[in-house]
Amino acid sequence: MAFRLALAQINATVGDLPGNRDKILEFVSSARAAGASLVAFPELALTGYPPEDLLLKTHFVAENLRLLRELASSVQGITAVIGFVDRSRTGELYNAAALVAGGRICGVYHKCALPNYSVFDEKRYFVPGDSPQVFRQADTVAAVNICEDLWVDDGIYVRQARQGARLIVNISSSPYEEGKRAQRIALLRRRALATGAAWAYVNLVGGQDELVFDGASLVVSREGRLLAWGRQFEEDLVCCDVELSSGTKKRVVLTLPASVSAQSARLLLARPVVLKAEAEIYQALVTGTRDYVRKNGFQKVLIGLSGGIDSALVAAIATDAVGKENVVAVSMPTRFNAGATKGDARRLARALGIEFKEISIEPLFKAFLAVLAPHFKGHSFGLAEENLQSRIRGNLLMAFSNKFGWLLLTTGNKSEMATGYCTLYGDMSGGYAVIKDILKTRVYALCEFFNTKEGREVIPRSVFTRPPSAELRPGQTDQDSLPPYPVLDALLQDYVEAHRSADEMARRKPGGEWTARVVSLVDRSEYKRRQSPPGIKISKCAFGKDWRLPLTNHYRPRIASASGK
Amino acid sequence: MAFRLALAQINATVGDLPGNRDKILEFVSSARAAGASLVAFPELALTGYPPEDLLLKTHFVAENLRLLRELASSVQGITAVIGFVDRSRTGELYNAAALVAGGRICGVYHKCALPNYSVFDEKRYFVPGDSPQVFRQADTVAAVNICEDLWVDDGIYVRQARQGARLIVNISSSPYEEGKRAQRIALLRRRALATGAAWAYVNLVGGQDELVFDGASLVVSREGRLLAWGRQFEEDLVCCDVELSSGTKKRVVLTLPASVSAQSARLLLARPVVLKAEAEIYQALVTGTRDYVRKNGFQKVLIGLSGGIDSALVAAIATDAVGKENVVAVSMPTRFNAGATKGDARRLARALGIEFKEISIEPLFKAFLAVLAPHFKGHSFGLAEENLQSRIRGNLLMAFSNKFGWLLLTTGNKSEMATGYCTLYGDMSGGYAVIKDILKTRVYALCEFFNTKEGREVIPRSVFTRPPSAELRPGQTDQDSLPPYPVLDALLQDYVEAHRSADEMARRKPGGEWTARVVSLVDRSEYKRRQSPPGIKISKCAFGKDWRLPLTNHYRPRIASASGK
Repeated sequence: MAFRLALAQINATVGDLPGNRDKILEFVSSARAAGASLVAFPELALTGYPPEDLLLKTHFVAENLRLLRELASSVQGITAVIGFVDRSRTGELYNAAALVAGGRICGVYHKCALPNYSVFDEKRYFVPGDSPQVFRQADTVAAVNICEDLWVDDGIYVRQARQGARLIVNISSSPYEEGKRAQRIALLRRRALATGAAWAYVNLVGGQDELVFDGASLVVSREGRLLAWGRQFEEDLVCCDVELSSGTKKRVVLTLPASVSAQSARLLLARPVVLKAEAEIYQALVTGTRDYVRKNGFQKVLIGLSGGIDSALVAAIATDAVGKENVVAVSMPTRFNAGATKGDARRLARALGIEFKEISIEPLFKAFLAVLAPHFKGHSFGLAEENLQSRIRGNLLMAFSNKFGWLLLTTGNKSEMATGYCTLYGDMSGGYAVIKDILKTRVYALCEFFNTKEGREVIPRSVFTRPPSAELRPGQTDQDSLPPYPVLDALLQDYVEAHRSADEMARRKPGGEWTARVVSLVDRSEYKRRQSPPGIKISKCAFGKDWRLPLTNHYRPRIASASGK
Repeated sequence: MAFRLALAQINATVGDLPGNRDKILEFVSSARAAGASLVAFPELALTGYPPEDLLLKTHFVAENLRLLRELASSVQGITAVIGFVDRSRTGELYNAAALVAGGRICGVYHKCALPNYSVFDEKRYFVPGDSPQVFRQADTVAAVNICEDLWVDDGIYVRQARQGARLIVNISSSPYEEGKRAQRIALLRRRALATGAAWAYVNLVGGQDELVFDGASLVVSREGRLLAWGRQFEEDLVCCDVELSSGTKKRVVLTLPASVSAQSARLLLARPVVLKAEAEIYQALVTGTRDYVRKNGFQKVLIGLSGGIDSALVAAIATDAVGKENVVAVSMPTRFNAGATKGDARRLARALGIEFKEISIEPLFKAFLAVLAPHFKGHSFGLAEENLQSRIRGNLLMAFSNKFGWLLLTTGNKSEMATGYCTLYGDMSGGYAVIKDILKTRVYALCEFFNTKEGREVIPRSVFTRPPSAELRPGQTDQDSLPPYPVLDALLQDYVEAHRSADEMARRKPGGEWTARVVSLVDRSEYKRRQSPPGIKISKCAFGKDWRLPLTNHYRPRIASASGK
């Protein structure tokens, strides 16, 4: 028999219990109208994900339970699977899925595998469930599990399949990472073949602080065939008819009321296009930025536009995220800025169609130098004076932000954040660090992608070809103090994302000879990262919740050999 | 028979494997010289605590294992209990204690209860042990467990006692919190009576980022009598003779080689004085500051001295932490600073004997206003201009910090951090936030304590009596926009430290009527706290690792009633 299911990949907002309830009800109606027997929502759809320490507030959990019951009373003619926070009588919390049908909560599943690595802290809040909770719906036996339950080998799904589940619905809030969609497809196929069940995977959409959820829900047949998929980075209701063998005779925990007939016309699915590598990352950055801006109540964003490649990319992303009419760029040259750079900033703003201001900071820089002169006597121009320029710019941008309520976006990339090639309270000032997890070499690739997407040279060619420089002293370039970016980025991937040893890194060709310098730069910059604004994670290990290094840290990795011995 | 044990409460440094090894060996020698049969070191003494994501580096764990083996070969004539990271053949990590004697590792205990709440993330790294591992030493059966193992009711200690342990040694790295020593004594007494065993508790000493470990090791007889205690906030070797009934006949896992005779002369213990409330907190702040400064390689610290109570306290603490010759204070008045405030800053610096600079920021403030004037036309003086003054000060202080390598200490208190009554990149600039977890009302109490301790009016009386003000506009006082501090602080304790609901807070008398305002201020300031420097935790819930609220957060607690209904 064919079973019609719907996957509601919604953009929930953390803490917005009434708003999330309303959105869930809206998608329940759409799914019912589409003739689905069952509609599934993402993990913790009611609270938003991750709710973090809101879970320590008993009133927050109580309110989520109250709204779930209220919501359930409106669900008729369809079964809904809704992620929420359950609480035992003794106060333990569960990451849970409610089976809602016939106007009531018919069953509850508790997540068994609680992730507590990378950005996840679920053992801080939840205790694990251990019951497979299969249920009968129409002629089928189905089961629900939650996110990590899918990823852990020999997990709860084994028991669910043994109890006869022909359809396994996994509700997830799985943050985007480069290449994760392909991983999910491969895993779901493996699980389908192992269990002999069809799998439906519904994932959250939207940005939440440093995380971006990419949706991209999936349905896989018990033979491992990909039957349907949802849009990436957008809300979607994925409907799909799944052929299921009839249910087992085994005892099941729960029999749900019959839903609407599954006989209605076969859906025409407009299958969304799957994004290619750079496009996918670019869209993640746009989504993260848009949701941070909008969910935090900002209308406009502000960017310090230097004429360099990093701020060019951030301006491009911002324009796609909130609209060119909501982006203000400020260029703040000093004596050290080449005319070409200033010109590029202006040209780029014009090409993007965003508001542009130019303010020379030369008089402010001079005023600071004058005030400091008696105290700095006998010391030559150095880091303090370089940082001063960056901090004057930060001050001006924050003054605009405070005066007009614009959100300041920072423009530092991951290579800079890693090596500390950035100024605390200077260019690091701002509410959101759009490209914090993008290595410099990829910044170029994303800018190329942007120009290609636009079909014209929005970001001027000279921005790509000029040697990168902070322009804080005469003739400065990044490569005065850093290895060439391709070498640097490869070493950073080793050290930051793979936690490789300095010894292994030293054997890398070319570039291994830079190991000691790079390791030392990364280790010594921890204090800067600790005070940096949040930014969008797209890699296996970003400088955010998944990077918890001590500030006070005397560990100095040994490099036994830089010669490959 | 009497058993002489030694508790080595050392100040380990995170990541400093060779340094910690050397320190352990030094204390092993002292304990042996004192005639002890057994010497115990704190939890993870070899790596320092908490090592956080250093544990994700396989080379770090390997190095800790290598050094443990090396260290063991030097331990003769005594049994040492040493905290380290153990690794299984399949790569799982354990928070472990090695029993070292006769030049080798004789046994290993794995921590069973892994804390994953508050500031603790141990389930991120470790898997739990589940073996009691009692061992025979001389005529006694003893057991070791680790930190949280003591705190969990019906924990592993029950099985250790059932297997005949007459002495239970708990090695801890337990961060200081107000009143925690008394809690530990009460708990140890309860455990001693329940198990019929004597308990020895050894705790780490020193500061590590936001945590301060207070030492204060304890020995309790099986009748629950407090036999010995270690100094607070200082390294110490606590030696104590414990009467133990002879060991059980039950099978034990391990028999350790005989140590030196326990017949040597009874030790004369100079029992350290126990600190009173304010003194204890003050000492925690001094210890945290000193260790952050020293372990991060700084010689001098820098403070923006306003003439107000907060910076007065920080200057006092800094002077005790690193010595008056290493503290530089800078006063940076504008047109809005009263002459009295400026005078107090100068007077305080003189009384403390610290270097003092005064720099008027008026010309810089004017220069900024002039540059911004064309852009701010038609807007009146407001928050942007107030913050600007604070940020100019931040810039100047950071210029000094960059030029001379001095660590900038911030002076904001917890009431300000909670309500956002502070300027990002302004007065929040700095590497370490000394009084970040101290509510304003307690700032006054600690200043009183300081003057009393010094026996003279170091902090001028007028600093206590002047109404608190940021002096960023004419006639401003804190109470223009905040409730009176005693009311504010009581509400903050409810909301921040106890996660109470707004409803409960609204019933508080007096002050409940401020609930909505305070809750909203706290919720809206999350973005500032996220970028604030680390500071010393002394409360149940500080704004650090134990405060993980989402930035994007639409939860608005309902206030059903402000009238107590």
